[in-house]
Amino acid sequence: MPREITGFSNPLVKRVRGLRDKKNRRREGLFLAEGLRILAEAEEAGFLPVMLFYAGGSASHPIARRLIAATEAAGGDVIETSADILHKLSGKDNPQTVIGVYPERLTPLDAIDRGGADIWIVAQSLRDPGNLGTILRTGDAVGAGGLILVDDCVDPFSVEAVRASMGALFTQKIAATRWDAFIGWLRAGPGQLVGTSLNTAQDYQAPRYAAPTFILVGNEAHGLPPAYEAECDLLVKMPMLGKADSLNAAVATAVMAYEVLNQRRR
Amino acid sequence: MPREITGFSNPLVKRVRGLRDKKNRRREGLFLAEGLRILAEAEEAGFLPVMLFYAGGSASHPIARRLIAATEAAGGDVIETSADILHKLSGKDNPQTVIGVYPERLTPLDAIDRGGADIWIVAQSLRDPGNLGTILRTGDAVGAGGLILVDDCVDPFSVEAVRASMGALFTQKIAATRWDAFIGWLRAGPGQLVGTSLNTAQDYQAPRYAAPTFILVGNEAHGLPPAYEAECDLLVKMPMLGKADSLNAAVATAVMAYEVLNQRRR
Repeated sequence: MPREITGFSNPLVKRVRGLRDKKNRRREGLFLAEGLRILAEAEEAGFLPVMLFYAGGSASHPIARRLIAATEAAGGDVIETSADILHKLSGKDNPQTVIGVYPERLTPLDAIDRGGADIWIVAQSLRDPGNLGTILRTGDAVGAGGLILVDDCVDPFSVEAVRASMGALFTQKIAATRWDAFIGWLRAGPGQLVGTSLNTAQDYQAPRYAAPTFILVGNEAHGLPPAYEAECDLLVKMPMLGKADSLNAAVATAVMAYEVLNQRRR
Repeated sequence: MPREITGFSNPLVKRVRGLRDKKNRRREGLFLAEGLRILAEAEEAGFLPVMLFYAGGSASHPIARRLIAATEAAGGDVIETSADILHKLSGKDNPQTVIGVYPERLTPLDAIDRGGADIWIVAQSLRDPGNLGTILRTGDAVGAGGLILVDDCVDPFSVEAVRASMGALFTQKIAATRWDAFIGWLRAGPGQLVGTSLNTAQDYQAPRYAAPTFILVGNEAHGLPPAYEAECDLLVKMPMLGKADSLNAAVATAVMAYEVLNQRRR
């Protein structure tokens, strides 16, 4: 049976609210996901929350009912609470009616089966959580296997990244590593490393991409370091007809990923 | 000569800080843009700030020196100030070293020369300022003429939208209108209205797009209303191979816009 928590000072409320901070996520190995849509995506991908908070009135929604039942059946902690406490947990003015707490799920690089997908996305020193989440969402759409985070990227389990991923956080593999380790792993098997860069004249539609294609995008402000570009099998760029010299990182990743996908499906 | 302001309670500091709120922007017809890169893009596009705030030490940067001189020559108010006050103006933890105040520049729909570009982007009830700014940035890159905002979109002059546009706010025409007025204007001249939608089987790479192409994207959560989809000359969708059923709105716009551009340049 769900239990009820209505007190703001309840220790569990404080602890779960603390998961909005990276240091608490790291210590607990847990993160927050919000909203029926994302929690339902997680369930479809085989992930149930270890804790599920829901607003009293929302239990009448069929998806909420299903999530509550499945979480209880799996031994999770199901907690009925108020809209005010959901607001406190999520930090949003219009909080979702359900919030789930999930174990963080990074995949070790060595456990990634590169043959399992034709496209992999590699991001280096990505700083914006919205970009990271959006790249996961795009990865899901193009049938990518996952996202490999290189060097100092923003936390993929931040509330903003989870939100922007719209559930793709649960369907894409996510690995976090350093550049040398990534290159060592990459070169031990098949894989074409394609960097998006401003330092090339090669149009992104010119090459025929080989599977598995590893699409490499760099930091929002600085792009890829020269040594990383030198390691790429191909450097390509999108046409830029205007005054600006670059695209948003998540946009560049998507335009590139759809080109690779379009070549595969021709 | 630049004047110096160091007091937090200075009325001009309060007034400019107030431009972070939409109601003050509307009343004053002014908005904020931050950072050397964006202000330099604005200058290149022919726009100088009516007020320019800069941190004392930053005047040694050649771009800052050029902006200061050009703004003064044009009769603008140039104000040397402190990092603390720039922080107060921008609301960012690491404020940029220059902040400009510009007149809002919406273009009336009737003043838009649709023949001036092959691509126009139309957004309906777009809610996220980051998406709006990113769409402007993409529009600049694909050589679009501008962005037509239909119905209740987020303010294109919000600090977040300006920041995400990376200066494209100054190079893209921006119009704001209602659906009926937009359709009336559109149908009075040439133009193919292409809606991105989940309610179609037509792949986005199948049609040959005709210039000028008006790419229509809907609200982030709800997509386009059925009546708006019915008005489109074409409805298309991107392949979605994963669990999710949609892309981020700015990503979908970019994937679509690059397809139209790629057809043109073949």
